[in-house]
Amino acid sequence: MQALREYLNQYVSSLISDEEFEVIQSYFVHKKLRKKQYLLQYGEICKHMAFIVKGAARKFYLDEKGVEHVVDLCIENWWAGDRESFAMSKPTIYYIEVWEDTEVLLISRANVAILEYECKPFNEFVLKLDEKSHIAKQKRITSAISFTAKERYEDFAACYPEILRRFPQHVIASYLGITKDTLSRLRRQG
Amino acid sequence: MQALREYLNQYVSSLISDEEFEVIQSYFVHKKLRKKQYLLQYGEICKHMAFIVKGAARKFYLDEKGVEHVVDLCIENWWAGDRESFAMSKPTIYYIEVWEDTEVLLISRANVAILEYECKPFNEFVLKLDEKSHIAKQKRITSAISFTAKERYEDFAACYPEILRRFPQHVIASYLGITKDTLSRLRRQG
Repeated sequence: MQALREYLNQYVSSLISDEEFEVIQSYFVHKKLRKKQYLLQYGEICKHMAFIVKGAARKFYLDEKGVEHVVDLCIENWWAGDRESFAMSKPTIYYIEVWEDTEVLLISRANVAILEYECKPFNEFVLKLDEKSHIAKQKRITSAISFTAKERYEDFAACYPEILRRFPQHVIASYLGITKDTLSRLRRQG
Repeated sequence: MQALREYLNQYVSSLISDEEFEVIQSYFVHKKLRKKQYLLQYGEICKHMAFIVKGAARKFYLDEKGVEHVVDLCIENWWAGDRESFAMSKPTIYYIEVWEDTEVLLISRANVAILEYECKPFNEFVLKLDEKSHIAKQKRITSAISFTAKERYEDFAACYPEILRRFPQHVIASYLGITKDTLSRLRRQG
Protein backbone atom coordinates (compact mmCIF):
# COMPACT_ATOMS: atom_id res chain seq x y z
CA MET A 1 0.00 0.00 0.00
CA GLN A 2 3.02 2.32 0.44
CA ALA A 3 3.23 2.69 -3.37
CA LEU A 4 -0.37 3.92 -3.46
CA ARG A 5 0.29 6.43 -0.71
CA GLU A 6 3.37 7.87 -2.43
CA TYR A 7 1.46 8.00 -5.70
CA LEU A 8 -1.56 9.82 -4.20
CA ASN A 9 0.72 12.29 -2.42
CA GLN A 10 2.00 13.47 -5.81
CA TYR A 11 -1.49 14.76 -6.61
CA VAL A 12 -2.61 16.46 -3.41
CA SER A 13 -1.84 19.94 -2.12
CA SER A 14 -0.96 18.75 1.40
CA LEU A 15 0.39 15.30 2.29
CA ILE A 16 -2.15 12.63 3.24
CA SER A 17 -2.20 11.98 7.00
CA ASP A 18 -1.92 8.51 8.59
CA GLU A 19 -5.61 8.64 9.54
CA GLU A 20 -6.70 9.64 6.05
CA PHE A 21 -4.60 6.92 4.43
CA GLU A 22 -5.99 4.34 6.87
CA VAL A 23 -9.45 5.16 5.53
CA ILE A 24 -8.36 5.25 1.88
CA GLN A 25 -6.54 1.92 1.94
CA SER A 26 -9.47 0.19 3.63
CA TYR A 27 -11.42 0.60 0.37
CA PHE A 28 -8.82 -1.18 -1.79
CA VAL A 29 -8.31 -4.92 -2.28
CA HIS A 30 -4.95 -6.40 -3.26
CA LYS A 31 -4.79 -8.93 -6.11
CA LYS A 32 -2.03 -10.80 -7.95
CA LEU A 33 -2.28 -11.82 -11.59
CA ARG A 34 0.07 -13.98 -13.60
CA LYS A 35 1.45 -13.00 -16.97
CA LYS A 36 -1.14 -13.50 -19.75
CA GLN A 37 -4.13 -13.46 -17.37
CA TYR A 38 -7.03 -11.17 -18.23
CA LEU A 39 -8.02 -8.42 -15.84
CA LEU A 40 -11.10 -7.80 -17.99
CA GLN A 41 -12.61 -9.59 -20.98
CA TYR A 42 -15.06 -8.54 -23.71
CA GLY A 43 -18.66 -8.67 -22.47
CA GLU A 44 -17.84 -8.45 -18.76
CA ILE A 45 -18.79 -5.52 -16.53
CA CYS A 46 -15.73 -3.65 -15.25
CA LYS A 47 -16.48 -3.73 -11.53
CA HIS A 48 -13.17 -2.34 -10.34
CA MET A 49 -10.53 0.12 -11.42
CA ALA A 50 -7.09 -1.41 -10.92
CA PHE A 51 -4.13 0.59 -9.68
CA ILE A 52 -0.97 -1.16 -10.89
CA VAL A 53 1.52 -1.57 -8.05
CA LYS A 54 3.84 -3.82 -10.04
CA GLY A 55 3.68 -5.14 -13.59
CA ALA A 56 2.19 -4.10 -16.91
CA ALA A 57 -1.02 -4.52 -18.89
CA ARG A 58 -2.38 -3.75 -22.31
CA LYS A 59 -5.95 -2.89 -23.22
CA PHE A 60 -7.08 -3.80 -26.70
CA TYR A 61 -10.10 -3.87 -28.97
CA LEU A 62 -10.58 -6.94 -31.16
CA ASP A 63 -12.27 -6.04 -34.44
CA GLU A 64 -14.56 -8.26 -36.52
CA LYS A 65 -11.64 -9.53 -38.57
CA GLY A 66 -9.84 -10.64 -35.40
CA VAL A 67 -7.28 -7.82 -35.51
CA GLU A 68 -6.16 -6.46 -32.14
CA HIS A 69 -5.97 -2.65 -31.77
CA VAL A 70 -3.99 -1.58 -28.70
CA VAL A 71 -5.92 1.23 -27.04
CA ASP A 72 -3.88 1.61 -23.84
CA LEU A 73 -0.63 0.47 -22.29
CA CYS A 74 -0.28 0.58 -18.51
CA ILE A 75 2.63 0.10 -16.11
CA GLU A 76 3.25 0.87 -12.42
CA ASN A 77 1.34 3.86 -11.02
CA TRP A 78 -1.25 3.75 -13.80
CA TRP A 79 -4.88 2.71 -13.67
CA ALA A 80 -6.28 -0.12 -15.76
CA GLY A 81 -10.00 -0.57 -16.44
CA ASP A 82 -12.78 0.51 -18.76
CA ARG A 83 -14.28 3.71 -17.42
CA GLU A 84 -17.43 3.46 -19.55
CA SER A 85 -18.22 -0.05 -18.32
CA PHE A 86 -17.25 0.95 -14.76
CA ALA A 87 -19.41 4.09 -14.72
CA MET A 88 -22.43 2.77 -16.56
CA SER A 89 -22.36 -0.93 -15.62
CA LYS A 90 -22.44 -1.91 -19.26
CA PRO A 91 -20.49 -4.78 -20.86
CA THR A 92 -17.02 -3.77 -21.95
CA ILE A 93 -15.87 -3.95 -25.58
CA TYR A 94 -12.23 -4.33 -24.50
CA TYR A 95 -9.80 -6.93 -23.24
CA ILE A 96 -7.23 -6.02 -20.61
CA GLU A 97 -4.39 -8.51 -20.53
CA VAL A 98 -1.63 -8.55 -17.97
CA TRP A 99 1.69 -8.52 -19.78
CA GLU A 100 3.96 -9.49 -16.86
CA ASP A 101 3.24 -10.97 -13.43
CA THR A 102 1.27 -8.08 -11.94
CA GLU A 103 0.00 -6.81 -8.60
CA VAL A 104 -2.96 -4.47 -8.49
CA LEU A 105 -5.07 -2.64 -5.93
CA LEU A 106 -8.75 -2.84 -6.85
CA ILE A 107 -11.45 -0.33 -5.94
CA SER A 108 -15.16 -0.56 -6.72
CA ARG A 109 -17.34 2.24 -8.07
CA ALA A 110 -19.30 2.53 -4.83
CA ASN A 111 -16.08 2.91 -2.88
CA VAL A 112 -14.69 5.52 -5.25
CA ALA A 113 -17.91 7.50 -4.74
CA ILE A 114 -17.63 7.25 -0.94
CA LEU A 115 -14.01 8.42 -0.95
CA GLU A 116 -14.74 11.26 -3.39
CA TYR A 117 -17.48 12.47 -1.11
CA GLU A 118 -15.95 11.89 2.30
CA CYS A 119 -12.21 12.17 1.82
CA LYS A 120 -11.01 15.60 0.69
CA PRO A 121 -7.53 14.47 -0.46
CA PHE A 122 -9.04 11.64 -2.52
CA ASN A 123 -11.50 14.07 -4.10
CA GLU A 124 -8.60 16.38 -4.97
CA PHE A 125 -6.67 13.42 -6.39
CA VAL A 126 -9.53 12.34 -8.69
CA LEU A 127 -10.01 15.87 -10.02
CA LYS A 128 -6.30 16.17 -10.82
CA LEU A 129 -6.00 12.66 -12.27
CA ASP A 130 -9.03 13.20 -14.51
CA GLU A 131 -7.53 16.44 -15.74
CA LYS A 132 -4.23 14.74 -16.53
CA SER A 133 -6.04 11.88 -18.22
CA HIS A 134 -8.19 14.30 -20.25
CA ILE A 135 -5.03 16.03 -21.49
CA ALA A 136 -3.33 12.72 -22.38
CA LYS A 137 -6.40 11.49 -24.25
CA GLN A 138 -6.74 14.76 -26.17
CA LYS A 139 -3.09 14.43 -27.21
CA ARG A 140 -3.65 10.85 -28.28
CA ILE A 141 -6.64 11.86 -30.44
CA THR A 142 -4.74 14.73 -32.07
CA SER A 143 -1.75 12.47 -32.66
CA ALA A 144 -3.91 9.69 -34.15
CA ILE A 145 -5.79 11.95 -36.57
CA SER A 146 -3.17 14.60 -37.43
CA PHE A 147 0.39 13.38 -36.93
CA THR A 148 2.56 11.44 -39.36
CA ALA A 149 3.89 8.03 -38.26
CA LYS A 150 7.26 9.64 -37.49
CA GLU A 151 5.68 12.37 -35.33
CA ARG A 152 3.50 9.83 -33.51
CA TYR A 153 6.52 7.68 -32.69
CA GLU A 154 8.74 10.59 -31.59
CA ASP A 155 6.03 12.08 -29.40
CA PHE A 156 5.35 8.72 -27.78
CA ALA A 157 9.07 7.93 -27.25
CA ALA A 158 9.59 11.33 -25.61
CA CYS A 159 6.56 11.03 -23.30
CA TYR A 160 6.67 7.33 -22.42
CA PRO A 161 10.24 5.91 -22.67
CA GLU A 162 9.53 3.31 -19.96
CA ILE A 163 6.52 1.91 -21.82
CA LEU A 164 8.59 1.70 -24.99
CA ARG A 165 11.10 -0.43 -23.07
CA ARG A 166 8.55 -2.76 -21.48
CA PHE A 167 6.44 -3.84 -24.46
CA PRO A 168 7.52 -5.62 -27.66
CA GLN A 169 7.58 -3.86 -31.02
CA HIS A 170 4.35 -5.32 -32.40
CA VAL A 171 2.39 -4.04 -29.37
CA ILE A 172 3.91 -0.55 -29.61
CA ALA A 173 3.25 -0.52 -33.38
CA SER A 174 -0.41 -1.38 -32.81
CA TYR A 175 -0.70 1.35 -30.15
CA LEU A 176 0.73 3.88 -32.60
CA GLY A 177 -1.38 2.61 -35.49
CA ILE A 178 1.63 1.82 -37.67
CA THR A 179 3.14 -1.39 -39.05
CA LYS A 180 5.94 -3.22 -37.26
CA ASP A 181 8.24 -2.52 -40.23
CA THR A 182 7.56 1.23 -40.08
CA LEU A 183 8.26 1.17 -36.33
CA SER A 184 11.58 -0.66 -36.87
CA ARG A 185 12.60 1.90 -39.44
CA LEU A 186 11.68 4.82 -37.15
CA ARG A 187 13.59 3.29 -34.22
CA ARG A 188 16.71 2.90 -36.33
CA GLN A 189 16.47 6.54 -37.41
CA GLY A 190 15.75 7.76 -33.85
CA MET B 1 -27.41 32.07 -16.97
CA GLN B 2 -30.57 29.97 -16.78
CA ALA B 3 -29.13 27.62 -19.43
CA LEU B 4 -26.07 27.04 -17.22
CA ARG B 5 -28.24 26.30 -14.21
CA GLU B 6 -30.38 23.76 -16.08
CA TYR B 7 -27.25 22.19 -17.51
CA LEU B 8 -25.52 21.87 -14.11
CA ASN B 9 -28.66 20.44 -12.55
CA GLN B 10 -28.43 17.49 -14.92
CA TYR B 11 -25.17 16.46 -13.25
CA VAL B 12 -25.83 16.88 -9.55
CA SER B 13 -27.59 14.54 -7.14
CA SER B 14 -29.78 17.28 -5.62
CA LEU B 15 -30.88 20.47 -7.40
CA ILE B 16 -28.70 23.54 -7.00
CA SER B 17 -30.23 26.09 -4.62
CA ASP B 18 -30.70 29.80 -5.43
CA GLU B 19 -27.90 30.69 -3.01
CA GLU B 20 -25.51 28.14 -4.53
CA PHE B 21 -26.27 29.29 -8.06
CA GLU B 22 -25.79 32.92 -7.05
CA VAL B 23 -22.23 32.00 -6.04
CA ILE B 24 -21.58 29.84 -9.12
CA GLN B 25 -22.76 32.41 -11.65
CA SER B 26 -20.69 35.17 -10.04
CA TYR B 27 -17.56 33.35 -11.32
CA PHE B 28 -18.65 33.34 -14.97
CA VAL B 29 -18.38 36.14 -17.52
CA HIS B 30 -20.71 36.42 -20.52
CA LYS B 31 -19.23 37.00 -23.97
CA LYS B 32 -20.60 37.22 -27.52
CA LEU B 33 -18.62 36.17 -30.57
CA ARG B 34 -19.48 36.61 -34.22
CA LYS B 35 -19.35 33.81 -36.76
CA LYS B 36 -15.75 33.10 -37.87
CA GLN B 37 -14.16 34.73 -34.79
CA TYR B 38 -11.53 32.77 -32.90
CA LEU B 39 -12.10 31.87 -29.29
CA LEU B 40 -8.49 30.62 -29.13
CA GLN B 41 -5.59 30.75 -31.57
CA TYR B 42 -2.35 28.78 -31.90
CA GLY B 43 0.29 30.02 -29.48
CA GLU B 44 -2.11 31.69 -27.03
CA ILE B 45 -2.66 30.55 -23.44
CA CYS B 46 -6.20 29.23 -22.89
CA LYS B 47 -7.17 31.39 -19.91
CA HIS B 48 -10.84 30.40 -19.80
CA MET B 49 -13.02 27.40 -20.46
CA ALA B 50 -16.07 28.46 -22.44
CA PHE B 51 -19.52 27.03 -21.81
CA ILE B 52 -21.53 27.44 -25.01
CA VAL B 53 -24.95 28.94 -24.30
CA LYS B 54 -25.81 29.46 -27.97
CA GLY B 55 -23.90 28.70 -31.13
CA ALA B 56 -21.25 26.28 -32.32
CA ALA B 57 -17.47 26.03 -32.54
CA ARG B 58 -14.86 23.76 -34.00
CA LYS B 59 -11.40 23.05 -32.61
CA PHE B 60 -8.73 22.10 -35.10
CA TYR B 61 -5.04 21.40 -35.44
CA LEU B 62 -3.21 22.87 -38.42
CA ASP B 63 -0.38 20.60 -39.57
CA GLU B 64 2.87 21.66 -41.20
CA LYS B 65 1.38 21.25 -44.66
CA GLY B 66 -1.47 23.59 -43.77
CA VAL B 67 -4.07 20.84 -43.50
CA GLU B 68 -6.76 21.33 -40.83
CA HIS B 69 -7.60 18.32 -38.65
CA VAL B 70 -10.87 18.77 -36.74
CA VAL B 71 -10.30 17.57 -33.19
CA ASP B 72 -13.57 18.66 -31.58
CA LEU B 73 -16.98 20.00 -32.54
CA CYS B 74 -19.00 21.87 -29.91
CA ILE B 75 -22.56 23.14 -29.72
CA GLU B 76 -24.86 24.37 -26.93
CA ASN B 77 -24.21 22.85 -23.49
CA TRP B 78 -20.66 21.83 -24.39
CA TRP B 79 -17.37 23.27 -23.23
CA ALA B 80 -14.80 24.70 -25.61
CA GLY B 81 -11.17 25.23 -24.67
CA ASP B 82 -7.81 23.50 -24.54
CA ARG B 83 -7.52 21.75 -21.21
CA GLU B 84 -3.75 21.27 -21.49
CA SER B 85 -3.11 24.94 -22.10
CA PHE B 86 -5.70 25.86 -19.43
CA ALA B 87 -4.23 23.55 -16.77
CA MET B 88 -0.57 24.10 -17.48
CA SER B 89 -0.56 27.68 -18.78
CA LYS B 90 1.28 26.60 -21.90
CA PRO B 91 0.66 27.87 -25.43
CA THR B 92 -2.05 25.96 -27.23
CA ILE B 93 -1.43 24.03 -30.45
CA TYR B 94 -5.08 24.43 -31.49
CA TYR B 95 -7.43 26.94 -33.05
CA ILE B 96 -11.02 27.21 -31.81
CA GLU B 97 -13.22 28.96 -34.35
CA VAL B 98 -16.78 29.98 -33.74
CA TRP B 99 -18.94 28.55 -36.52
CA GLU B 100 -22.10 30.58 -35.92
CA ASP B 101 -22.79 33.74 -33.91
CA THR B 102 -22.12 32.39 -30.44
CA GLU B 103 -22.64 33.25 -26.78
CA VAL B 104 -20.39 31.76 -24.14
CA LEU B 105 -19.92 31.88 -20.39
CA LEU B 106 -16.23 32.04 -19.53
CA ILE B 107 -14.61 30.81 -16.34
CA SER B 108 -10.93 31.10 -15.35
CA ARG B 109 -8.78 28.34 -13.88
CA ALA B 110 -8.53 30.09 -10.51
CA ASN B 111 -12.31 30.36 -10.33
CA VAL B 112 -12.83 26.71 -11.29
CA ALA B 113 -10.49 25.78 -8.44
CA ILE B 114 -12.38 27.95 -5.95
CA LEU B 115 -15.74 26.48 -6.95
CA GLU B 116 -14.41 22.91 -6.89
CA TYR B 117 -13.17 23.48 -3.38
CA GLU B 118 -15.97 25.56 -1.90
CA CYS B 119 -19.10 24.55 -3.76
CA LYS B 120 -20.14 20.94 -3.31
CA PRO B 121 -22.54 20.78 -6.29
CA PHE B 122 -19.89 22.27 -8.59
CA ASN B 123 -17.35 19.73 -7.34
CA GLU B 124 -19.83 16.95 -8.05
CA PHE B 125 -20.50 18.39 -11.50
CA VAL B 126 -16.80 18.49 -12.45
CA LEU B 127 -16.28 14.88 -11.32
CA LYS B 128 -19.23 13.70 -13.40
CA LEU B 129 -18.36 15.83 -16.44
CA ASP B 130 -14.76 14.60 -16.41
CA GLU B 131 -15.97 11.03 -16.26
CA LYS B 132 -18.31 11.59 -19.21
CA SER B 133 -15.56 13.34 -21.13
CA HIS B 134 -13.10 10.52 -20.35
CA ILE B 135 -15.58 7.99 -21.74
CA ALA B 136 -16.24 10.06 -24.90
CA LYS B 137 -12.52 10.52 -25.52
CA GLN B 138 -11.81 6.81 -25.03
CA LYS B 139 -14.52 6.02 -27.59
CA ARG B 140 -13.07 8.55 -30.02
CA ILE B 141 -9.60 6.96 -29.70
CA THR B 142 -10.94 3.43 -30.20
CA SER B 143 -13.01 4.60 -33.15
CA ALA B 144 -10.06 6.44 -34.75
CA ILE B 145 -7.64 3.53 -34.45
CA SER B 146 -9.93 0.49 -34.83
CA PHE B 147 -13.13 1.28 -36.70
CA THR B 148 -13.72 1.33 -40.44
CA ALA B 149 -14.91 4.58 -42.06
CA LYS B 150 -18.46 3.16 -42.14
CA GLU B 151 -18.38 2.25 -38.42
CA ARG B 152 -16.94 5.65 -37.49
CA TYR B 153 -19.67 7.46 -39.39
CA GLU B 154 -22.51 5.30 -38.05
CA ASP B 155 -21.30 5.57 -34.46
CA PHE B 156 -20.97 9.35 -34.78
CA ALA B 157 -24.37 9.78 -36.46
CA ALA B 158 -26.03 7.73 -33.72
CA CYS B 159 -24.35 9.63 -30.86
CA TYR B 160 -24.33 13.19 -32.24
CA PRO B 161 -27.18 13.74 -34.75
CA GLU B 162 -27.40 17.45 -33.89
CA ILE B 163 -23.71 18.05 -34.61
CA LEU B 164 -24.10 16.26 -37.93
CA ARG B 165 -26.89 18.72 -38.78
CA ARG B 166 -25.02 21.87 -37.75
CA PHE B 167 -21.69 21.47 -39.54
CA PRO B 168 -20.98 21.11 -43.27
CA GLN B 169 -19.78 17.86 -44.79
CA HIS B 170 -16.10 18.79 -45.10
CA VAL B 171 -15.90 19.59 -41.37
CA ILE B 172 -17.60 16.34 -40.37
CA ALA B 173 -15.35 14.42 -42.78
CA SER B 174 -12.23 15.93 -41.20
CA TYR B 175 -13.53 15.09 -37.70
CA LEU B 176 -14.06 11.49 -38.77
CA GLY B 177 -10.73 11.32 -40.59
CA ILE B 178 -12.31 10.40 -43.92
CA THR B 179 -12.59 12.15 -47.29
CA LYS B 180 -15.63 14.23 -48.22
CA ASP B 181 -16.44 11.76 -51.00
CA THR B 182 -16.42 8.80 -48.61
CA LEU B 183 -18.71 10.72 -46.24
CA SER B 184 -21.15 11.53 -49.08
CA ARG B 185 -21.26 7.86 -50.03
CA LEU B 186 -21.87 6.77 -46.43
CA ARG B 187 -24.66 9.35 -45.96
CA ARG B 188 -26.42 8.13 -49.09
CA GLN B 189 -26.23 4.55 -47.80
CA GLY B 190 -27.35 5.49 -44.27
